[in-house]
Amino acid sequence: MLSNAQIKHINALKIKKYRDEYKEFIAEGSTLVTDMITSPYDIAGVYALSPWITAHLELIRRKQIQVFEADPKDMERITTLANPGPVLAIVKIPPGDDEAFSAADGRSVEQKLPGFFQELSLMLEGISDPGNFGTLLRIADWFGIRYVVCSESCVELYNPKVVQSSMGSVARVKVFYTDLASLLEKIKGRIQVFGTFLGGESLFTRELDKNGIIIIGSEAHGISDQLSAFVTRRLFIPSYGSSEYGKAESLNAAVAAAVVIAEFRRRIV
Amino acid sequence: MLSNAQIKHINALKIKKYRDEYKEFIAEGSTLVTDMITSPYDIAGVYALSPWITAHLELIRRKQIQVFEADPKDMERITTLANPGPVLAIVKIPPGDDEAFSAADGRSVEQKLPGFFQELSLMLEGISDPGNFGTLLRIADWFGIRYVVCSESCVELYNPKVVQSSMGSVARVKVFYTDLASLLEKIKGRIQVFGTFLGGESLFTRELDKNGIIIIGSEAHGISDQLSAFVTRRLFIPSYGSSEYGKAESLNAAVAAAVVIAEFRRRIV
Repeated sequence: MLSNAQIKHINALKIKKYRDEYKEFIAEGSTLVTDMITSPYDIAGVYALSPWITAHLELIRRKQIQVFEADPKDMERITTLANPGPVLAIVKIPPGDDEAFSAADGRSVEQKLPGFFQELSLMLEGISDPGNFGTLLRIADWFGIRYVVCSESCVELYNPKVVQSSMGSVARVKVFYTDLASLLEKIKGRIQVFGTFLGGESLFTRELDKNGIIIIGSEAHGISDQLSAFVTRRLFIPSYGSSEYGKAESLNAAVAAAVVIAEFRRRIV
Repeated sequence: MLSNAQIKHINALKIKKYRDEYKEFIAEGSTLVTDMITSPYDIAGVYALSPWITAHLELIRRKQIQVFEADPKDMERITTLANPGPVLAIVKIPPGDDEAFSAADGRSVEQKLPGFFQELSLMLEGISDPGNFGTLLRIADWFGIRYVVCSESCVELYNPKVVQSSMGSVARVKVFYTDLASLLEKIKGRIQVFGTFLGGESLFTRELDKNGIIIIGSEAHGISDQLSAFVTRRLFIPSYGSSEYGKAESLNAAVAAAVVIAEFRRRIV
């Protein structure tokens, strides 16, 4: 059984203010927690039902994880899900990468992010829905994208719904928050910048590069004018057919990202 | 101001039992309601703030819509959203298409669904998340897929979250619920059946057809063994790269559907 202090601490981590203060976040469910334990993240503690602990003793010992046995009532009191799973972990937020794209420490972007200009990266502007954001990280992970650069207006990486919907990808993709316009200004001319718009040349016929940055705009507003100015190649996902009653006006941001990234990857098969 | 009876009726429609009983469902937000008004659906009533009514007088008159002026407090009491929009519509559920794939009335599938064997359709098995289901309808709509055939285990089409996340596509795509195995048995040999699996030949190199049925399985279990037996072409969305900490195990069902459908459409460009 967990103590009231433990339950209070875990529940505090559902709120951003306390995640920032304690530098910890929540991950739930067996697959996700196992992913986190085997990831580079440090685990502050695992709260689990007895059968889960028994089934994972080897992993717990090998990784020297601190485990607290919880009963089903405890899990109901700490869960962020509609149906609590058998395990919840408190994961430590690693020291920030806020300086990755600034010259504050005198090191260049290349030194800090090896390969950044020789690979495909994702840039997210104003993605505020945690489910969409997590899904975007999962897409990046699946298609081998290592770096995701986000505007400050994007939802926080350690929001429980982001962690949950990323299905563990939060631990495998490097996510940065920075002022996107300043970054794009700084690296202008060194890398192609792709953006998806409702119109323009078809993604399927447009010349693509193996490297570049793909900007995905917010669901409600698309890519802002400020960032559009940096786009060197505009892309359009063609739509097909239409009923007499009109047709879909747009695709969900994560869906659009997946179609675009898949096409980049298809071409280098 | 709305009456208590009106507010009670609208709130009842948030529950499936009452949607079934009253044959009505809810649509919210200006874009969605406007889509519904211009769709083949009949509108039972529109509940809106005064500025919305003023801005849409022409549409309301032309379509002879019954409108009730609501104040912001009313909207808060009837909304299904975290932040209520300026308008909510009650839409009539049209008479069912339950018999589309049965021979109960002696007419064939071709007679009931012209073109079914000459086009690309989507089949959904066990999609229980309303957001995913709505996103799948939006994808079908964008890519010109007219028919979506669902297992009885899929979420209900008129669930408010489905309607909302479909962004109006619920009104433009024909959705059927039926026993998928019986249907596939009946049409076996007449159309290619594609299924996405975690492994197999790459989607990007596999031979595809202009016509066919694409089966999307549930997020948790994929395509069932029972339906897999009907798949004539297995597809695999290749994943790329992998960190030392593993990689994403799968893609979200809607994301996978979008990548597969986009590839079909790309080939016939």
